[in-house]
Amino acid sequence: MHRDRPRYVIDRPAYNLTDFDREFDKKSRQFPVGEKVKKLFRYRIAISPHSQHELQVFPSRKLYLLTSFVLCSNSPVAMKFSRAVDFFTVTTIKSELFKEFPLFVSVRCSVLRLKGLLFRHLPVLSWLPKYKVKDNLLCDVISGVSAGTIQVPQGMAFALLASLPPVNGLYSSFFPLIPYFFMGTAHQMVPGTFAVLSIMVGIVCLRLAPESDFSHFNATLNSTIVDTDRMNEVRLGISGTLACLTAIIQIGLGFMQFGFVAIYLSESFVRGFMTAAGLQILISVLKYIFGIQVPPYSGPLAVIYTLVDIICGLPDTNIASLVFALVSSIVLIVAKELSARYRHKLPFPIPMEIIIVVVATAISGPLHLPEIYHMDIVGEIPLGFPAPILPTVNQWEDMLSTAFSLAIVGYVINLAMGRTLAAKHGYDVDPNQEMLALGCSNFLGSFFKIHVICCALSVTLAVDNAGGTSQFASLCVMLVVMVTMLALGAFLKPLPKSVLGALIAVNLKNTLLQLSDPYYLWKKSKLDCCVWVVSFLATFFLSLPYGVAIGVGFSILVVIFKTQFRNGSAMVQIMDTDIYKNPKVYSKVVSITGVKIVNYCSPLYFANAEIFRQRVIKKTGLDPGKLILARRKFLEKEQKQKTKEENKENETRRRKPSSLANMKTISQLELQIDFEMNDGSASKPEPPTSYVNFHCSDIEPGEQAPDQEPPSPTLVSQPMPFHTLILDLAGVCFIDLMGIKVLIKMNSSYTMLGIKLYLANVQAPVYEELEVGGAFDDGNIARSNLFLSVHDAIVFAQQTTGERRVSPTAERARQELAFNINEKKDLEQEMF
Amino acid sequence: MHRDRPRYVIDRPAYNLTDFDREFDKKSRQFPVGEKVKKLFRYRIAISPHSQHELQVFPSRKLYLLTSFVLCSNSPVAMKFSRAVDFFTVTTIKSELFKEFPLFVSVRCSVLRLKGLLFRHLPVLSWLPKYKVKDNLLCDVISGVSAGTIQVPQGMAFALLASLPPVNGLYSSFFPLIPYFFMGTAHQMVPGTFAVLSIMVGIVCLRLAPESDFSHFNATLNSTIVDTDRMNEVRLGISGTLACLTAIIQIGLGFMQFGFVAIYLSESFVRGFMTAAGLQILISVLKYIFGIQVPPYSGPLAVIYTLVDIICGLPDTNIASLVFALVSSIVLIVAKELSARYRHKLPFPIPMEIIIVVVATAISGPLHLPEIYHMDIVGEIPLGFPAPILPTVNQWEDMLSTAFSLAIVGYVINLAMGRTLAAKHGYDVDPNQEMLALGCSNFLGSFFKIHVICCALSVTLAVDNAGGTSQFASLCVMLVVMVTMLALGAFLKPLPKSVLGALIAVNLKNTLLQLSDPYYLWKKSKLDCCVWVVSFLATFFLSLPYGVAIGVGFSILVVIFKTQFRNGSAMVQIMDTDIYKNPKVYSKVVSITGVKIVNYCSPLYFANAEIFRQRVIKKTGLDPGKLILARRKFLEKEQKQKTKEENKENETRRRKPSSLANMKTISQLELQIDFEMNDGSASKPEPPTSYVNFHCSDIEPGEQAPDQEPPSPTLVSQPMPFHTLILDLAGVCFIDLMGIKVLIKMNSSYTMLGIKLYLANVQAPVYEELEVGGAFDDGNIARSNLFLSVHDAIVFAQQTTGERRVSPTAERARQELAFNINEKKDLEQEMF
Repeated sequence: MHRDRPRYVIDRPAYNLTDFDREFDKKSRQFPVGEKVKKLFRYRIAISPHSQHELQVFPSRKLYLLTSFVLCSNSPVAMKFSRAVDFFTVTTIKSELFKEFPLFVSVRCSVLRLKGLLFRHLPVLSWLPKYKVKDNLLCDVISGVSAGTIQVPQGMAFALLASLPPVNGLYSSFFPLIPYFFMGTAHQMVPGTFAVLSIMVGIVCLRLAPESDFSHFNATLNSTIVDTDRMNEVRLGISGTLACLTAIIQIGLGFMQFGFVAIYLSESFVRGFMTAAGLQILISVLKYIFGIQVPPYSGPLAVIYTLVDIICGLPDTNIASLVFALVSSIVLIVAKELSARYRHKLPFPIPMEIIIVVVATAISGPLHLPEIYHMDIVGEIPLGFPAPILPTVNQWEDMLSTAFSLAIVGYVINLAMGRTLAAKHGYDVDPNQEMLALGCSNFLGSFFKIHVICCALSVTLAVDNAGGTSQFASLCVMLVVMVTMLALGAFLKPLPKSVLGALIAVNLKNTLLQLSDPYYLWKKSKLDCCVWVVSFLATFFLSLPYGVAIGVGFSILVVIFKTQFRNGSAMVQIMDTDIYKNPKVYSKVVSITGVKIVNYCSPLYFANAEIFRQRVIKKTGLDPGKLILARRKFLEKEQKQKTKEENKENETRRRKPSSLANMKTISQLELQIDFEMNDGSASKPEPPTSYVNFHCSDIEPGEQAPDQEPPSPTLVSQPMPFHTLILDLAGVCFIDLMGIKVLIKMNSSYTMLGIKLYLANVQAPVYEELEVGGAFDDGNIARSNLFLSVHDAIVFAQQTTGERRVSPTAERARQELAFNINEKKDLEQEMF
Repeated sequence: MHRDRPRYVIDRPAYNLTDFDREFDKKSRQFPVGEKVKKLFRYRIAISPHSQHELQVFPSRKLYLLTSFVLCSNSPVAMKFSRAVDFFTVTTIKSELFKEFPLFVSVRCSVLRLKGLLFRHLPVLSWLPKYKVKDNLLCDVISGVSAGTIQVPQGMAFALLASLPPVNGLYSSFFPLIPYFFMGTAHQMVPGTFAVLSIMVGIVCLRLAPESDFSHFNATLNSTIVDTDRMNEVRLGISGTLACLTAIIQIGLGFMQFGFVAIYLSESFVRGFMTAAGLQILISVLKYIFGIQVPPYSGPLAVIYTLVDIICGLPDTNIASLVFALVSSIVLIVAKELSARYRHKLPFPIPMEIIIVVVATAISGPLHLPEIYHMDIVGEIPLGFPAPILPTVNQWEDMLSTAFSLAIVGYVINLAMGRTLAAKHGYDVDPNQEMLALGCSNFLGSFFKIHVICCALSVTLAVDNAGGTSQFASLCVMLVVMVTMLALGAFLKPLPKSVLGALIAVNLKNTLLQLSDPYYLWKKSKLDCCVWVVSFLATFFLSLPYGVAIGVGFSILVVIFKTQFRNGSAMVQIMDTDIYKNPKVYSKVVSITGVKIVNYCSPLYFANAEIFRQRVIKKTGLDPGKLILARRKFLEKEQKQKTKEENKENETRRRKPSSLANMKTISQLELQIDFEMNDGSASKPEPPTSYVNFHCSDIEPGEQAPDQEPPSPTLVSQPMPFHTLILDLAGVCFIDLMGIKVLIKMNSSYTMLGIKLYLANVQAPVYEELEVGGAFDDGNIARSNLFLSVHDAIVFAQQTTGERRVSPTAERARQELAFNINEKKDLEQEMF
């Protein structure tokens, strides 16, 4: 392709920003705050599924809208619109339409708003009427029933993780599905238990209702007896209370349109967190697999204590439990591998979980294995629906942080699954609506002793793989769970807990495979790897809520960190092009005499404003602040000497020509260095590049009023190592007041030295921030020093080099400013 | 200037990045991690005062270094070097020199290293030998003594804020100055009490040693008696313990080179925090001014309770106290105003504080006013040095968070003052060394019952205004404090506390003026204003340590927030230039048919990767994912129909030409919209811009092996609304793995649709991140799709438009990939 490579031919005037804006008619765009806030909300809404197109259409089609709204508000077109619009948009239209058709619209709009809200928050209204019974119902039923058979054993297993009786898993797999059916926007999603959430619930249950509270020493049996029934009852109450608090947080965040909080959880964090949680889950099911009694721990390092106890307890392994666990794991693994290989030939996935559970129960029960081998079993499952309970509100204080973690983590898992499904099937999920749906699911469930749920991973995948298309599949899952709850549960009594433990452990395969993440991440991005490792370690060794806080905090800190280092480089021209690159990277370059170009690629804000200044000083090799001070000191000395000499002259009545004595040629850089040395910092003098004449003006001493300050001598000529400094700010994507302050300060100090500071490639939003922040106010940066590109700036710099002699008076004023400016500052005000 | 405006004339080949790198000889720069870490440290060091120049010199001047080190290591040159080098640099030189002169160097280098460390951590060694006694000593002594007279009353006043006996203020103004004399890098700085820190210490003292612990009911007097002496003793112990913990944190951070933490405190936060602290200070001195007894509160909202109590207590105002306070405030304010006006005429500032204290004492004592009016007085000041105590280590757990806040806030105030002084006088302060110096000052002091100190603001300013040049001024301050401690303190017994309260209140003037900050900030930057307000409110209503945590957290969140909104705009060409701008801003623009340009100005990372994708979809008006799905569905239908037709044809033995039946022309956009509608999202069809032919290839059904998947039909021609999408990434200053993932995903989906994705203006660091992150790996983004500028990309896009017919087989393969790619994904793996 590069043989007949196209050419880049341009012949245009060079522009600075003022010229450019004038010539090409820049429109000023005002964004008042109210407007901005509205935009913010609108923007948020624009990501929601229904409203993207309509929002763009509104302003121009007001009349069309009106007719369609008013005249055919029951027709399909209006239906579609009413679904599309949401609260804020409706308000906007309403106010606009009101102006023109006040009476007519008002009634209609209230109806419209209500309808809009209804359709937005109950997606079932939009998909149910269009549901194609003939095409999809069969698929949904088959997929739902087969997925339901996974949901039952998994729910019971996860209830164990949450230190709750297995029946809680059935409740958790039933009640939350009802609100989600009406409110969920992800069609194939089945809400249900999720191991990570279960284990977090378990931590709270153990902390607030420890076993020790329910044990008493029975003298007859000479051992400690735990009142398991009462303990389970109390823990179910705690679990419901926690679910209720979590639900309230989720509903609150959903209504506040805070669905976007999900984006603060970076992938590296989520994977590290999930892996650590997976390991914790594995460790906590080991006791069921080996049939060992382990005292429950909570708090930081709990997982280590548990692990140690399990290892110490290994000699007491219950062989029967272990055999059950091993056999079921092996069967499950083999079945999973086979079904993965032949999944295209199977009409629906084989519900291996339920088969294992049934077989294990069938072996264990009739043979009385639990009694013979003292195996830990599921035990009596109370049949029927649970009686609703109220949350114990005064416990909320103790569970607030966990509830917050649960709310966020559950939501993020749910949303990630929903988005994956949506991408596969081509629909959108509304983040805020998902948050609400999840919250309502948890809320309803909380009265029926569930523990917090999100999406049931393997169940959802089973539904999707079997071709489920809608929430009818969830309905079938519910039916299966209900049948178990009402009738079949009774038969599960002799099921060994170790089988459930094995089911959990096998399902962790993918999570534990992520342990190799850091290896790949390290090669791709060191910092992402750090985030992973920090999240993993914090989650694993401290606990899951700590892990969330530390992981999120650290991944945000990494962003700040990224803006601080490895930025800023000098640039030179590439041969005779308009391209400027780092001379350390490209070799065929030419440098332009008298011009320095420094590039900076990072937002300019409080955390790096000072670093930016230092980088520019380092890359240009000249510290303007020090140079100005050095000059001032030099001039003060000069002044003193002059006064002395003049006194002498007065004595000797001008024997010598004074102008000669006052001329002095010294190196700028030597001056700077000399100054630095005086202040105790050592420095190797670089070869001087240019010389400067400090020329004291010939003011007669008589001309000075005695109470005036001594006039500063003028620097007549002052060739610097460079006359123009161009800052390429293309990579600066935003700037805050501290960044602006640094730029203004740099501008004024370079100006004092007669160096021009040009800014090139300023991004449009940065320009606005500069403008609002007062960077172009009087005495600060001149607008005409902003250029469209580095090359424009260079062209200007080369042209204006010749014009740089300024009138002596202006120069004089400038100099005085330069040398007195510091004196006038109030140091205390200056401090920050 | 714009009349003879220079022209921008360029005629060069258009480059994509591969061509450019080849032609201009790009060097690959390797930064192995070890190297990076070293660089990081070096960089950090480079900001330190001494090493800037040397570091650049080293590699080239090894031999010169060697000679100067070895031969004249006692000469001034080597001295200078040894001062310059620090631990890491020394290690580097050492290893380099070792290779060449192994035996000779080893001994010398150890000495050198020691010397380097010594000079680095004891700056006194470098400034003391060069101290010009004749020029500076007099100035230092005068400024020191006059500043000392400010230090004494202020220290005592701030001790009141800390709920400690006034003598503690004297200790705090004496002991910490000793280490700072040796270790401080800011020449004019006087360490001492600072109101904000004092009040934070006060909170801890009140919490850990509340008055109630020392009060008992005395039946004889029928009132509650507080054992003040013992309470003061315990509180002094707490104060010392807190200072010790703070010191350890500071020293630790200093040694870990964590001086840079200061930059995380944005100016808006610091000002908001300081203002809130100032208000709190004002409220807490009101009780002294009015002479009211107020029970101490701590914890959130303490300030409100105190304020309420003060207001309720106003009727009990002690008139004598109030008169003393008012008179001293007025005198002080007037004196300050006058001395500010005539400061150029005064040789040194008038020590008004001490004059007021002396006068107040002289009036109050001999006239026995305290006894007559029951005024609260300073009381007995124990003369002599305090006996050293050891910190009570087991209290550290309770004060950790406050100590951390104290360490950071104290350091930041100190550094801000140091930098202001350094900028005024042209030297550098070493952030890490300052942290160490401050830590050591607190550490020594902690054994002598001080409370945590940083810089004494008004004392330092007094020294500076009076022309102090070195730490000798601090020495004189120390002397003044010592004299008070040893002898004069006894005379201060009858000084009313209300006078000290008035001194504090008057000094708050500047802080309270900052209450108008939000007004100015709002105009300049809304978000900075939010940071100020949040910091202020959190600090004021909760408490100071909470304020630090919330303020810092919020200012970091704002940075993240800034990268998420108001980004991304479509761009079009400005007339016939190579400049591309937002058409909403500039009017004289031409759009290029078939090319869309989208600009994004923000780092691309986990928090906005999805937002970025949505923006591009919104700005181009085309969602590639949906379009692909729509096409696939359409083709599946087509395929079904075809099979049906073919069956029919087989029956009718090809009566009609089949190619005609298989051709179908539909609108791309209609397809997308139709698809969206099917999925329940409403959408207003835009006017179709282009049409597409779905042409099913004429494959004979017999050619297909029966177990193969049905071959996807080929799309022979597919004119889209645009054929090239150019992303202008100039403003993207870094990218993380999630950003890269989104780019790769976008690239593959656009490629499936036959749209080229070009990236323009990729910044050098971003390019590296893309490369390391695997963006250019097989099947991902082609390196040749990266361009130097938007115009280069445009030129390429326009040239290659004609060449876009690809060979049918390649196209076919691509299509198959396109339509099967989603099927092959493991959804669970895809989820995150």
